[in-house]
Amino acid sequence: MRAVQLVSETQGLQLVDWPMPDPKEGFNIIQVSHAALNHRDLWISKGRYAGIKYPVILGSDVCAFDENKRRVIVNPGFNWGDDPRVQSKSFHILGMPEHGSFAEYVSVPVQHIYSAPAHLTDAQVSALPLAGITAYRTLVIKCKPQAGENLLITGIGGGVALMVLQFALALKLNVYVSSSDHSKIEQAIQLGAKGGVNYLDSKWDVEVLDQSGGFDMIVDSAGGESFSKFPKICKPAARIAMYGGTNGVISNLSPQQLFWKQISIYGSTMGSPSEFAEMLSFIIQFKIIPIVDSIYELADFNSAFNRMNSKQQFGKIVLNVSK
Amino acid sequence: MRAVQLVSETQGLQLVDWPMPDPKEGFNIIQVSHAALNHRDLWISKGRYAGIKYPVILGSDVCAFDENKRRVIVNPGFNWGDDPRVQSKSFHILGMPEHGSFAEYVSVPVQHIYSAPAHLTDAQVSALPLAGITAYRTLVIKCKPQAGENLLITGIGGGVALMVLQFALALKLNVYVSSSDHSKIEQAIQLGAKGGVNYLDSKWDVEVLDQSGGFDMIVDSAGGESFSKFPKICKPAARIAMYGGTNGVISNLSPQQLFWKQISIYGSTMGSPSEFAEMLSFIIQFKIIPIVDSIYELADFNSAFNRMNSKQQFGKIVLNVSK
Repeated sequence: MRAVQLVSETQGLQLVDWPMPDPKEGFNIIQVSHAALNHRDLWISKGRYAGIKYPVILGSDVCAFDENKRRVIVNPGFNWGDDPRVQSKSFHILGMPEHGSFAEYVSVPVQHIYSAPAHLTDAQVSALPLAGITAYRTLVIKCKPQAGENLLITGIGGGVALMVLQFALALKLNVYVSSSDHSKIEQAIQLGAKGGVNYLDSKWDVEVLDQSGGFDMIVDSAGGESFSKFPKICKPAARIAMYGGTNGVISNLSPQQLFWKQISIYGSTMGSPSEFAEMLSFIIQFKIIPIVDSIYELADFNSAFNRMNSKQQFGKIVLNVSK
Repeated sequence: MRAVQLVSETQGLQLVDWPMPDPKEGFNIIQVSHAALNHRDLWISKGRYAGIKYPVILGSDVCAFDENKRRVIVNPGFNWGDDPRVQSKSFHILGMPEHGSFAEYVSVPVQHIYSAPAHLTDAQVSALPLAGITAYRTLVIKCKPQAGENLLITGIGGGVALMVLQFALALKLNVYVSSSDHSKIEQAIQLGAKGGVNYLDSKWDVEVLDQSGGFDMIVDSAGGESFSKFPKICKPAARIAMYGGTNGVISNLSPQQLFWKQISIYGSTMGSPSEFAEMLSFIIQFKIIPIVDSIYELADFNSAFNRMNSKQQFGKIVLNVSK
C-alpha cells in the first residue's frame, strides 16, 4: 500500500510502498479515505518529539471505511486508562509508535472505531478527532461554560482553537479571539466571534478588555509572556484552560490576582473515551462542521506539511489518501 | 473602652481610650475576650495594604460574649454576595474599614455571629476564624481531597498553613511540609506530618519527591520562583491551591507539565458564609484545636506584632483583651 512514512532521522518523510497491516486480535484494518495533519505530525517529522521511532507512518486523524463499507471515525487516544481525570502512563496517540493514518490502510483497536457523523464530508470527518477531543475536554469538560459567558481564544486559526470557537458558539458564549494575523481575526468574526485583537500589539490586553468587558474563560495554547496578562483581563471566578505551550514558560504571573479573583487554571490534553463519544454526540446535535483549510493528495504531502509550517492555515490541512 | 488603634500613618498603632461602638440596626455589640493577629493586621500597620483609612481599630478574629453571655465566634468576611464561587465587589473583612476586634467591644452583623465550639478555650476560638475559613476553602472546597492522597503544605508555621495541616490530618491525607526553619518542620511532624523539607535547600524538590512519591495536592501561600517546581513534584491530575503570594510573581512555569499532567491551579481567598458554617461543623466534628503560638495582654500588643514580624511563630498569636 502507499504510505507517507518518516523513514529515518536523515531521510525524513517519504511516500513509500509498505506492506498492509497484519490482522491482529481486537484490531480492525480500515481503508483510509482522508487523513488530517496535526502539529504533532510536524514536530515528529522535525525530530522535535519525545521517543521517536523509525520507520513510522504518521497520522492521528482519519476518515475511513470498514470491511462492511461503513464510514468510520477513530478515537486516536489509546490506553487512556481508568481515571477520567488523567491519561495513564501507557497512553499514546495513533501515528507513533503505532503506524498512523497517512496510508491506504490503518489498523486500529475495534473499540476506538465509531460511525462517522453523517452530516460531514470525508475530509471534514478526518478533520475532527484530535482537534475535536482536545477542544471538547479543554472547553466543555474543564471550563464548564454557561450560555452568555465571555470567552477569549488565543491564536485562532489552528485546528483546536477553531473547534473551541465552534463549540463555544454552539453553547452561546460571547467569543473573542487573538491572532498575529489580521485576516484570521476577520475570518473568526465572520464565523461568529464578537471581536478580536492582534497579540503583537503591546496594548492587546487593554483593547480586548475594552471590547469584551472581561473574560469568564480563556482558552490558550501558547503560554509564554502573554499568559501573565490573562488574570488582569479575567472577571472574578474566571477559568483559564491551556492545552499547549508554543511560546514557552509562563513568567510574571501574579499570585495576588489569581487568589483575589478566585481564578482557576486548568492544564488539559486529549480526552477520555467517554469524552470522545460525548464530543461526537455534540458535533451531531449542533451540526458542527469542522473547518478544512485545504486538501492535498497523498503524494503531495510535502505541500501539506509546508502549509502547516507556514502557519498560514485557517482550519485543518487534510490529505486525500484515496488519490 | 480600651482599643489598639492604627492612629495615623505616622503615629502607627497605639493603645487608646475610644468610645464604645454605637448601636446599629442588624448589628450586635459583643464583649471581646480574645482576638488573634493576622498578617493582614501587620501589613495594614506597616501601610502595605490597599485603601487604609485612619484611625481604625484593627483585628479580624475574635472570641467574645454577647448580651446573653453566650460565647460567640464571628465570620469576619462581610458582604460575600450571592456567588459561591467568588466574593462580591463590596466584600471586606472585619478590622478595616469597620473597626475590628482589638478592643473591649466590637460591633458585628448579627448573621455573622455563631456559637463558639465548646471544646476550645477562648484563645483557641479567637485563633480560628480567618485562618480557618481560608484553609477550609483552599483545601476542602477547592482541592476536594480524598483520604490517602499526598499533600504538600509550603511555609508551615503560619495560621492558615497549620489549619490546612490539621484539616488534612482529619481527612487522613499524607501530609508533607516545607519551611526555612528546621524546628517548624519538626513540630509539624510531631503533629502528624509524614515529612518535610527546608525550602532554602536547592534540592528541596527532589528531596520531598523522594520522601512522598509525588503530590496529589499542594497548598501554597508564597508563589515566587519555587512555584515553578510544583508541577514537577505533582502526580498526574494534581491540584495546586494558592491563598497568598508573599514571594512575589510566579516565573518559569512550564505549560507542558501543566497540560500533560492535567494539573489544576486554584486561586482561593477567604470563603462564603455557608463555607464558614461548614468549617465550624468540621472543627466540631473532628475536635480540631487551633494551634496558639502565644498569648499577649492587650497593652502588650507591640510584643505580639513584633512576634509576627519575626516570623518565628508556630500557630496563632493571640491578644487577651480582657486583661
